[in-house]
Amino acid sequence: MQEIAAVAIEQTELISAIDTVWVSICAAIIFLMEGGFALLEAGFVRSKNAMSIIAKVFIDITFGGLAFYAVGFGIAYGASNGWFAFDTGITDGDLGLGLTVSNKLFWFIQLGFAIAAISIVSGAVAERMKVWAYALYVIIFCAIMYPLAANWVWNPNGWLALRGFNDFAGSAAVHAMGGFAALAAAIVLGPRLGKYDQNGDPVAIPGHNLPLAAVGGFILWFGWFGFNPGSTLGAVGNWELIGTIATNTFLASAAGGVSTIFYTYFRYGQIDITMTINGVLAGLVAVTAGCNVVDSGSAIIIGLIAGVLVDMAVLFIDKKRIDDPVGAIAVHGVNGLFGTIAVGLFASENGLFFGGGTDLLATQAIGVFVIGSFSFVVTFIIMKIMKKTIGIRVNRSEESAGIDAVSFGVEAYTTFE
Amino acid sequence: MQEIAAVAIEQTELISAIDTVWVSICAAIIFLMEGGFALLEAGFVRSKNAMSIIAKVFIDITFGGLAFYAVGFGIAYGASNGWFAFDTGITDGDLGLGLTVSNKLFWFIQLGFAIAAISIVSGAVAERMKVWAYALYVIIFCAIMYPLAANWVWNPNGWLALRGFNDFAGSAAVHAMGGFAALAAAIVLGPRLGKYDQNGDPVAIPGHNLPLAAVGGFILWFGWFGFNPGSTLGAVGNWELIGTIATNTFLASAAGGVSTIFYTYFRYGQIDITMTINGVLAGLVAVTAGCNVVDSGSAIIIGLIAGVLVDMAVLFIDKKRIDDPVGAIAVHGVNGLFGTIAVGLFASENGLFFGGGTDLLATQAIGVFVIGSFSFVVTFIIMKIMKKTIGIRVNRSEESAGIDAVSFGVEAYTTFE
Amino acid sequence: MQEIAAVAIEQTELISAIDTVWVSICAAIIFLMEGGFALLEAGFVRSKNAMSIIAKVFIDITFGGLAFYAVGFGIAYGASNGWFAFDTGITDGDLGLGLTVSNKLFWFIQLGFAIAAISIVSGAVAERMKVWAYALYVIIFCAIMYPLAANWVWNPNGWLALRGFNDFAGSAAVHAMGGFAALAAAIVLGPRLGKYDQNGDPVAIPGHNLPLAAVGGFILWFGWFGFNPGSTLGAVGNWELIGTIATNTFLASAAGGVSTIFYTYFRYGQIDITMTINGVLAGLVAVTAGCNVVDSGSAIIIGLIAGVLVDMAVLFIDKKRIDDPVGAIAVHGVNGLFGTIAVGLFASENGLFFGGGTDLLATQAIGVFVIGSFSFVVTFIIMKIMKKTIGIRVNRSEESAGIDAVSFGVEAYTTFE
Repeated sequence: MQEIAAVAIEQTELISAIDTVWVSICAAIIFLMEGGFALLEAGFVRSKNAMSIIAKVFIDITFGGLAFYAVGFGIAYGASNGWFAFDTGITDGDLGLGLTVSNKLFWFIQLGFAIAAISIVSGAVAERMKVWAYALYVIIFCAIMYPLAANWVWNPNGWLALRGFNDFAGSAAVHAMGGFAALAAAIVLGPRLGKYDQNGDPVAIPGHNLPLAAVGGFILWFGWFGFNPGSTLGAVGNWELIGTIATNTFLASAAGGVSTIFYTYFRYGQIDITMTINGVLAGLVAVTAGCNVVDSGSAIIIGLIAGVLVDMAVLFIDKKRIDDPVGAIAVHGVNGLFGTIAVGLFASENGLFFGGGTDLLATQAIGVFVIGSFSFVVTFIIMKIMKKTIGIRVNRSEESAGIDAVSFGVEAYTTFE
Repeated sequence: MQEIAAVAIEQTELISAIDTVWVSICAAIIFLMEGGFALLEAGFVRSKNAMSIIAKVFIDITFGGLAFYAVGFGIAYGASNGWFAFDTGITDGDLGLGLTVSNKLFWFIQLGFAIAAISIVSGAVAERMKVWAYALYVIIFCAIMYPLAANWVWNPNGWLALRGFNDFAGSAAVHAMGGFAALAAAIVLGPRLGKYDQNGDPVAIPGHNLPLAAVGGFILWFGWFGFNPGSTLGAVGNWELIGTIATNTFLASAAGGVSTIFYTYFRYGQIDITMTINGVLAGLVAVTAGCNVVDSGSAIIIGLIAGVLVDMAVLFIDKKRIDDPVGAIAVHGVNGLFGTIAVGLFASENGLFFGGGTDLLATQAIGVFVIGSFSFVVTFIIMKIMKKTIGIRVNRSEESAGIDAVSFGVEAYTTFE
Repeated sequence: MQEIAAVAIEQTELISAIDTVWVSICAAIIFLMEGGFALLEAGFVRSKNAMSIIAKVFIDITFGGLAFYAVGFGIAYGASNGWFAFDTGITDGDLGLGLTVSNKLFWFIQLGFAIAAISIVSGAVAERMKVWAYALYVIIFCAIMYPLAANWVWNPNGWLALRGFNDFAGSAAVHAMGGFAALAAAIVLGPRLGKYDQNGDPVAIPGHNLPLAAVGGFILWFGWFGFNPGSTLGAVGNWELIGTIATNTFLASAAGGVSTIFYTYFRYGQIDITMTINGVLAGLVAVTAGCNVVDSGSAIIIGLIAGVLVDMAVLFIDKKRIDDPVGAIAVHGVNGLFGTIAVGLFASENGLFFGGGTDLLATQAIGVFVIGSFSFVVTFIIMKIMKKTIGIRVNRSEESAGIDAVSFGVEAYTTFE
C-alpha cells in the first residue's frame, strides 16, 4: 500500500499543487489590494470626487488588466534581448523562471503587480484628471511601460536581472515605477484649484472620509502579506524564506508606523493619524525590494527611516507646489527609491553595511535610477502630448462642482434619508 | 534518511493536506463574500434601510447556514435518486465525489455557495420585506430549494450531472437559482413606494453610500477568486486548471467592466459607475459556469456580452415595473442564464462555436431553464402563501419612515457628533 | 523518471512547504482581523472619536507588535520553567512544539494572537483614554503580560499545558486575557461623560456608523477562519481536524447570531442588530477554546448559550456602571470564560457531559480563572499607577469636544463637499 501510494502521483505533481495553492491565494490577496487603493484614495479626497477616483481604479483593473493580458505580459516575460521581448499573450512555453505553476497562474499574479503600479498613479491625479485621457494612459502604462521595467528586473534575461539587481517584490519595478509616473503626471496636471493660496502656500484639503481610508489602508497592509511572500512564486524549497519575508514585512511596517508617530508628535505636538497610515505603507514599500535578503534588525531600521522619509517628502513635495492628494509620490516613489538602494546597504550577505562592498549598492542605485527616470520621462512626454491634443484636465467649473456630479452624474452619498 | 522520509507519511495524507489547505482557504474567502453582499446592498439602498438589509444578510448566514447544515446538505449530497436525497446531516460516508478533504470541510465550502444564493434574494427584496417572513423563506430556500438544485447539478447521481451539464461553480445552481427567486419575490412584493410616478415611469432611487457599495463590490470580486478556482475541490491534479480558471475569471470580469463603461458612455454620454460595478459582477457570474472549459478569448467575449446584458436587463426590468433595488435579477438571474448557455456555445471541446454541435448547448439550456423555472415558481408560490397568511410587506408608514428605525429601533448613522 | 522524482525532494521539505502555505495564509488572515477590530470599534463610537480609536489599533499593531518581537516571544516560547521563559527574540532553536514551519513564521502567526488580545482592550477604553498612557500599557501587555499567559497555555512546558488544559485557539489566553484587562481598564478609567444620568441610569450612546461596524464584523468573522483552523500550525496530519474546526467555528457563530436574534426579539419586541453582531462574535469567542474537541451539536449549543450570555452581560456591565463602549468585556471576557469552561463540559472524549468526569472541567476552570484574575489584577494596578502619575484620562473639555479634534487635529469626516 505504501509502495503503491508512493508512486501513485509524481512528486512534480505534488510540488505543482502546493505551489499553485500558494501562488493562487497570494495572487487573490494581491488582487484585493486594488480595493485597498480605491478606498484609501477615495477616503483621502473630497466627497465630490470620491466615486470618480474609484472609477479610475476600476479602469486600472479592467483596461489595465486587459492591456497587460493582450500585450504587456509578452513584453515582460517573453524571450528578452535584455531590454524587451515581443511575444504576445500567454504561451505554453518555458519562461526560464523555473516555474512550477502554470504560465496562466503566473500571469494572474503578475497582473496584480501591474495594476498595483498603475493604481499608484490614480491617486496622484485625483480630483482633476479627465477620465478618458487617464484610460489611455493606463493602457500605455500596462501594455508597454510597466512591462519594460518588469522585463529588466524579473525576466531571466533582463539587463538588471543579469547584473544581480535585487528587487524582490518590486520596490523599484512596481513602486518607484508607479511613484515617479505619479510625480510626472502631477507636475503636468498642476495643482487642484485652491490648493495654493495667493502667496503660493499650500492649503490643506482634508480627506472626506478617513475611516474609509483606514479600510483601504488595512486592506493594503493585508495585501502585502500576499505581495511579498507570494513573490517567491512557490513554497516548495522556500519555507524558511517565506517566514523571513513575512516577518521582515511586518517589522518594517510597524517601524514605519512608529517612526511616523514619533516624528509627527515631536514636530507638531500631536500624532498625525493619516500620516501614520502613510508611514506604515512607506515601511512596506521600502522593505519590498529587500525582504528576502535583510535580517530582522535591518528591516526595522529600513522601516524607521521610511516612516520619517515619507513625512519629509510629503512636506517637500507640497512646498514644491506639486499637488499629490493622497501622498502617492512620497509613499511609493520616494520609498521605492529608498528601499531599492537600502538593499545595497543592508543585504546581509553583500550589502555595504555588512562588508559586502559597493557592487550591489551601485547596481541597486543604477537600477532604480533608470527605472524612475524612465517612468518619469515617458510619463511626462505622454502627459504633455495628451495635454496638447485631447486634454488631460477637467475644466474649472467641473473641478469646482466635482467630477462625480458633472462627469459621471453620480453622488457618493445622497442625503442620509 | 531519504528512504525513511519517503515512507514516513502516506502520499494520500500529503494529498489530503494540500487539498485541505486549498479548500479551507477558498471556503473562508467565499464566506467573506457575505460581507460583500451585505455592504453592496447596504450602499445601494437608502440609509433608512441600510441596517435592516445587513440584518437580512446576517439571517442568510445564520438561519440559512444552520438550515443547510441540519437538512440541506443531506438533500444535496446524500444518495440521490437523480432528483433528491434524504440523508440528514454530514455523514462520514463516501459521497462519490472523489473528495480528498473531509466531508465537514466539503460542507463548509458548500455552505458558502448556499448562502451566496440566498443573499442574491436579500438584495431584491430590500427596503420593504418583513424580516420574519424573510427568515422563513431563507430557511426553506437553504434547507430544501437550493439543495435540490445542487443535487441535480453536482451530486454524482444528479440528473443534470449525469447528462453532462457543465455548471462548474454555479452560474445556474447558485446565480440563476438566486436570481430567479429574486425575480419572483420582487414581483409578489411589488415596487417600493415612490419607485414609479403617476405615469408609471420609474423614478431613480439612488444608493445612499456608494463608496460602501464599492467596498462590497471589491470584496465580492476578491471572493470570486475563491469561488471559481475553489470549485476544483482540490489542487492536486488540478494545478493547470486552477491557473486557467483564475485567468478566465479575471478576464471575464474585466471585459464586463469595460463593456459596461463603453455601453453606458455611448448610450448616456457618461460612464455609469454603479452600473460598472454591476458589469464586473455580471462578467463574473457569466463565466462561473464555464471557467473550466472555455479559453481566454471566449472568457473575454462572455464578459463583454455580460456587461451589456446587465445594462439592458436593468432597464428592461425597471420598465416592467419590477423593482429590484440592487440589480440582483439582472446581475445574477440574467447572467446566470446567459453564462450557463454560453458554455454550450463557447466550451472549447464541445461547444457549438468550436464544432461541438448542439448536444451540450441543449443540455445547458434545459438545465438552466429547469433550475430558473423551479426557483421562480416555488418562490412565487411561497411568497403568495406568506402574503395571504403572515404577510410579507411592511406597512406603508414603516416603509416611509424606514425599516431600520421602526422595526429595529436603530439608525445606521447618528448625527456626526 | 518516477524513481528520480520520488527522491528529488525530501518529504520533510514537502511537509514544511504545505504547512508553510497553510500557516502563512492563516497568519495573514488573522492579521487582517486588526482591521476588523479597528472598524468595528470606530463604527460603535461617536464620530468625534472615530479616528483616535483607529489610531489606538495602529498602536496595538505597531508598538505591540515590536514589543512582542523584541521581548514577548522569548517570554512566551523560550525554555519555560512552567511560568515564564527568558529568551530574547526569535532563535533558530527547536521550540519543542514539533513545528514544521520556521520559527519566524511561527512568530508571525503568534503576533496575530498577541495584537488581537490587546485590541480587545482598545475598544473598552474608547473615547476617553490618553493615547500615550495607552501606548505604554500596550507595550507592557504585549511584551510581558500576554506572553506569560501564552507561556502557561501553549509553551510545551507551561504549567497549564502540562495539566492538559485545552485552549485550542485562545478563548482563555487571548479572549479572557484581553477581556478581563478591558474590564479592569474600564473600571479605573470610569464611564464617559454623560454615560449615566443623574439617577445613575445608563444612557445609550449609539455608534455613529453602523455599516462601518458591520464591515469590521465581517472582517473579524472571516478572520476567525484563519484564527481557529490556523491554530493547528500545520495541515499535514490535520486534514480531518481542520474540517471539524472550520465547521464548529461556523456553527457556533451562526448559533450565537440566532440566539441573540431571538433573545432580543422576545425581550425587546424587536431584533437588536448591533447586538446580533456581538452575538456572532460571542459564539466565535466561546468555541475558540474547544473547536478541536467538541462535536457539531455541542458547537451549536455553545453558540446558543454565548449569544444569550453576551446580551445579559452587556446589560449587567452597563448596570454596574462600567462603561464599555463596544461591548468588549461581554464578548471577549465573559465568553472567553464561558468557552474555556465549556470545553470541560462538552469535550467529546473527556467532558463532563460525555462521561469524562470533572478532571478536565476543573483544569479548565482553574486555568481561565488564573488567567482572567492575572489579567484583571495586573491591569488594575498598572492603570492605577499610571492614573496617579502620567494620567490616563483626557480632560473634560477634550472629552466633550472629541479626542480626534483636540488630540489629533483631525476629523473623521469633513463636510460632504
